[in-house]
Amino acid sequence: MCFGQGEGNRGAAVRLIECVPNVSEGRDLQGLQKLADAVKGVSGVTLLDWSADPDHNRSVFTYVGEPEVVLRATQTLCQAAFALVDMSRHRGAHPRLGAVDVIPFIPLRGVSKEEALELARRLGEWIGAQGVPVYYYQDAATRPERVGLPDVRRGEYEGLVDRLATEAGRPDAGPAEFNARSGASIVGVRFPLIAFNANLGTTDLAVAKRIAEAVRFSSGGYRHLRAMGVALESKGQVQVSMNFVQYEETPIHRVLETIRFEAARHGVEVTGCELIGMAPLAAFEETIRHYLQLHDFSLDQVIESRLLGDKQTAEGG
Amino acid sequence: MCFGQGEGNRGAAVRLIECVPNVSEGRDLQGLQKLADAVKGVSGVTLLDWSADPDHNRSVFTYVGEPEVVLRATQTLCQAAFALVDMSRHRGAHPRLGAVDVIPFIPLRGVSKEEALELARRLGEWIGAQGVPVYYYQDAATRPERVGLPDVRRGEYEGLVDRLATEAGRPDAGPAEFNARSGASIVGVRFPLIAFNANLGTTDLAVAKRIAEAVRFSSGGYRHLRAMGVALESKGQVQVSMNFVQYEETPIHRVLETIRFEAARHGVEVTGCELIGMAPLAAFEETIRHYLQLHDFSLDQVIESRLLGDKQTAEGG
Repeated sequence: MCFGQGEGNRGAAVRLIECVPNVSEGRDLQGLQKLADAVKGVSGVTLLDWSADPDHNRSVFTYVGEPEVVLRATQTLCQAAFALVDMSRHRGAHPRLGAVDVIPFIPLRGVSKEEALELARRLGEWIGAQGVPVYYYQDAATRPERVGLPDVRRGEYEGLVDRLATEAGRPDAGPAEFNARSGASIVGVRFPLIAFNANLGTTDLAVAKRIAEAVRFSSGGYRHLRAMGVALESKGQVQVSMNFVQYEETPIHRVLETIRFEAARHGVEVTGCELIGMAPLAAFEETIRHYLQLHDFSLDQVIESRLLGDKQTAEGG
Repeated sequence: MCFGQGEGNRGAAVRLIECVPNVSEGRDLQGLQKLADAVKGVSGVTLLDWSADPDHNRSVFTYVGEPEVVLRATQTLCQAAFALVDMSRHRGAHPRLGAVDVIPFIPLRGVSKEEALELARRLGEWIGAQGVPVYYYQDAATRPERVGLPDVRRGEYEGLVDRLATEAGRPDAGPAEFNARSGASIVGVRFPLIAFNANLGTTDLAVAKRIAEAVRFSSGGYRHLRAMGVALESKGQVQVSMNFVQYEETPIHRVLETIRFEAARHGVEVTGCELIGMAPLAAFEETIRHYLQLHDFSLDQVIESRLLGDKQTAEGG
């Protein structure tokens, strides 16, 4: 006989969402440090990165945590940014609508699209209550013409006064009145983007281009894949350079097998692949399941998941 | 131009070691709860599990963290266990030498075997300084006859008085004098064990047995693999049931490919696999590298790694 003491159940399944707000200030580093500190001050949130571009006069913050604490961190960051940035004096190379210009929520693990959408809408309502008009974009868009970011941002801050007065420009949340200081914010939900490249053992760029065409959505391939053929002069090779836009429905291993299959027709082999930057563990879940035939594999069987779960119980609960 | 703010470097590479002490007390749950609390009280350590067996009169604690904090947690647990357990009154079904009977350190990630050995020796010296004789076993063994746990434990607590008086029984650390209250402790280093099974689409047990023989060390196969053929009556299948003893040198994907290759000779296919219990992410590192041809893949490219790294900087630093 053996009885456990239930510690094993303490670390619930890990739930993670990422948020990457773009703020229209890229020169006042002291001011931006306060925004970073505001995010770091929220228990359970990890600020992975932030950077500022003085030419664009724009900064980007990347942080991760459970949904509720990420929402709280975003509200705190918005509050600080609305205080810091005066759009009526903003000049910069990058297109923008407002002080906190774009706020995408990116579900990483254990968070459904529906839940992320609800989080985006709650943030939108909250920003609206601060007197700032809000447009929803991407997966949160309320109209087809608001899905793409360039479309939502058309006319920029300078065109907002006129736009808000029209039916086509009516905001999704907040007042339909021009806020000279803060402009408007664009809130949405999107999937994490995985940058993954496959190198081919040939110098023939045409082969890479044909394979890219075979696998990418725009020419009849996988729904959530962008791809192009690129020459790697220094390596004497060519590359299928890819962006996985939704790796759950279009997983890495399936696309790679298709590339191998198509390359074989040209007598060419994949010599190696590269993952650019970072990816959530979930992006490799189907790779492990497929090649090891682990039909019942769960990410919660990975010890590191348990440690994160315990962390969140301790910090975010 | 763009300049980052260095947050990206904050989360250093995650380093994890596991410790699984076996304590000779399985009935006094209040006393054992104090041991669990002692481990949980060390910042940066996660107690994954603990369980007690009243028939064996023995309990097992499993916790994870960076090397230094895991050492500290183990010292704290030993202190509490030496106070709790009086070996002169201990009765139980399980063989044992002392109050804290066995203490294996298990490197999970970013910790070399050498570093784990040093940690084991530091703990051994410390336990010795408490007046308790220590034997090193498994990868920490100082003599071939002390590698296997059953060999080190032979004669049990009751035989310690005589054993300590002989050259063959001289402890590796601590006094060569009998400690009636605490007995002796066995400290070592071993790799995490991965339990992984491959099911075959046949009812012919002989096929599973032949394949198990082909891949396991004991009959000429992979060095760090144990395997046996098992019938799964309810499924109408047979299984190659395996223990990966060192998954870095004998990785899962290579053994599975060998199984597929050998099964094909019998016209049999692998229908599915199963991972029993948990495994560190590192156990899948070579799976991802191999099948996705990601020659330069690093576990630190997985977002969850970064979150853990930040956790450890915050709590364990």
